[in-house]
Amino acid sequence: MQSGKTNHLTIAIAAVALAFSLVAAADPGEEELLKRAQAIFKPLPKDMATPEFPVTPERAELGRALFFDPRVSLDGTVSCARCHQPSLYGADALPKAIGVKDRANPRNSPTVLNAALHFNAHWRGDRVNVEDQAVKALTGPASFGQPDFDTAMARLQAIPGYLPLFQKAFPGEKSPFTAENWGKAIGAYERTLATPSPFDAFLAGDVKALSPMAKSGLDQFINTGCTACHNGVGVGGGIFQKFGVKEDYWKATGSKEIDRGRFDVTQKQEDMYVFKVPSLRNVTMTAPYFHDGSVATLGDAVRTMAQVQLGKQLKSGEIEQIVGFLNSLTGALPKDFATAPVLPAGAFHPPAPTAPVAQPATPAPKP
Amino acid sequence: MQSGKTNHLTIAIAAVALAFSLVAAADPGEEELLKRAQAIFKPLPKDMATPEFPVTPERAELGRALFFDPRVSLDGTVSCARCHQPSLYGADALPKAIGVKDRANPRNSPTVLNAALHFNAHWRGDRVNVEDQAVKALTGPASFGQPDFDTAMARLQAIPGYLPLFQKAFPGEKSPFTAENWGKAIGAYERTLATPSPFDAFLAGDVKALSPMAKSGLDQFINTGCTACHNGVGVGGGIFQKFGVKEDYWKATGSKEIDRGRFDVTQKQEDMYVFKVPSLRNVTMTAPYFHDGSVATLGDAVRTMAQVQLGKQLKSGEIEQIVGFLNSLTGALPKDFATAPVLPAGAFHPPAPTAPVAQPATPAPKP
Repeated sequence: MQSGKTNHLTIAIAAVALAFSLVAAADPGEEELLKRAQAIFKPLPKDMATPEFPVTPERAELGRALFFDPRVSLDGTVSCARCHQPSLYGADALPKAIGVKDRANPRNSPTVLNAALHFNAHWRGDRVNVEDQAVKALTGPASFGQPDFDTAMARLQAIPGYLPLFQKAFPGEKSPFTAENWGKAIGAYERTLATPSPFDAFLAGDVKALSPMAKSGLDQFINTGCTACHNGVGVGGGIFQKFGVKEDYWKATGSKEIDRGRFDVTQKQEDMYVFKVPSLRNVTMTAPYFHDGSVATLGDAVRTMAQVQLGKQLKSGEIEQIVGFLNSLTGALPKDFATAPVLPAGAFHPPAPTAPVAQPATPAPKP
Repeated sequence: MQSGKTNHLTIAIAAVALAFSLVAAADPGEEELLKRAQAIFKPLPKDMATPEFPVTPERAELGRALFFDPRVSLDGTVSCARCHQPSLYGADALPKAIGVKDRANPRNSPTVLNAALHFNAHWRGDRVNVEDQAVKALTGPASFGQPDFDTAMARLQAIPGYLPLFQKAFPGEKSPFTAENWGKAIGAYERTLATPSPFDAFLAGDVKALSPMAKSGLDQFINTGCTACHNGVGVGGGIFQKFGVKEDYWKATGSKEIDRGRFDVTQKQEDMYVFKVPSLRNVTMTAPYFHDGSVATLGDAVRTMAQVQLGKQLKSGEIEQIVGFLNSLTGALPKDFATAPVLPAGAFHPPAPTAPVAQPATPAPKP
């Protein structure tokens, strides 16, 4: 009896192994899907350095420290990591970011992961690149809130441990504490934050890297027409597009304010309601969605996009498939992002906070 | 020539090795210093679990996620990690912490590292333990700012990924989303955040674990009388003490407000200006100092303490020695603190922020 069982087991294992090896060979449909995908998308590079913006270890190390340091901000509470939290996949889960002094930003905080891939920065494309974004955030009233670059840099200069880091990152510069160098260092760090995903393994030729659901979702994603905008290395992030091609976006999203998008930057009628197409990498991890964070779940975001951009009403099953594909765009957090750097020690030297004190100040006792 | 050089080198190496082995043997003074120290201090335990507050892997894992999650707070910007940042050694570098809605806390944010060692929590000891601190922070107006526990817990329940984490941490409980369990989970996590330091190796008998400077500083620290309060496993954190035994503290620190400390909790005259003696573990990394963050550097803090508590004017060299000893109380960041957990995905569902919008809201265009 025992021996008979063992024999049956052996045969069963052999059968499963055979079946598995058959499945492991790509079928023609898979190969064709791969070829279609390779014509539309590109796998992530190792990093996002360019000749103009090289990644040196020294700059990335400095940039990593600066990214996590709140002492540079007006009230000492805002670092880049406040709106781009590692635990929340480089975003903040808020509809719209909140910066110094509880000031609301006008738009949703996109993830910093792979952000250097985009053809520019910010929803309206009014930042040239991640370096420009970092520099302008210093004086952005709802981000770091500093009155000027000198005040911001004086904060860093007051922390002794930063001098050697700046000197190593910008050798030979007499006064390396500049906003431009802040941008270059943070940019160098951000250009290392690539998150290769199962979809990248698929694009590289491993047709088994995607689940059957993800593959059918990819097929659906292409057939529905999403790839007209969400393509390339970022699966988005490469062009501008009007939000609301087929109908007004705010009717579908329930947005409380109507944002005219890039029109307010250029004053050109063709830019009315135009935004940068966001990258969909790690999109599963970065709810809520759209420029105003008006939609909370990925399924609702997919449904809304098909409706207002393509005039299509997707069925629940189709949405599930596409979400299955989008799940395959999640990569692991980069180690140097998940792991906090130890910052140079030193107290924040602020102007005293002007906000109301929540608990009554203790009065001086009578002598 | 070459051979002669080699011989000289060999002799030199032998001489250095001999000298080193002589130094490496403890001298009687070192052994005596070790014995004195062992009578005053204790090395850190592996963790800070107690029979009442056990650390289970499931609770610590849940607590770690909760610690980093800002979605539980009123405005979605405050997690425990906002005032207890890994990059800033579990503190925030601010004189006084700033919580939701830019509300100023009345006192300095102490590091969360080793905090479960303290005999109670908060500067005035008005929290029983780290669990109690975490629970009361939920409704603290200048911390998480929630109107009540139910509202806070509803935030977590709205994030689907938390249910299995709560169920695993509190098996068999029908409704595990309670403020009490929030406190227990965060407490379990915090009870793992021990940072063994070179001083612990010294206390365990390795007299070479401390530099000569640190050892002379330890001797100075004991002889000056600092150990009357800063003793035990936390090098502090074990008793209350009046701040300003010999003279008014605010005259020495330049504090802008006079805080009556524990008097405002108990209304007893003997508690006037009484605070919990802070632990000095990792103190080098957690400027600024004192309950009001009024002193920015560790040297100034040492000088001030000797003066107002002990009536002693320390010389610069003595202060440097003591700072050298205090440096030896810095341990490495625990891996599960330095590394951010990936939080269950999901958008924050807020009441809309009430703060002024920093940039003008875009008006709706004319149809």
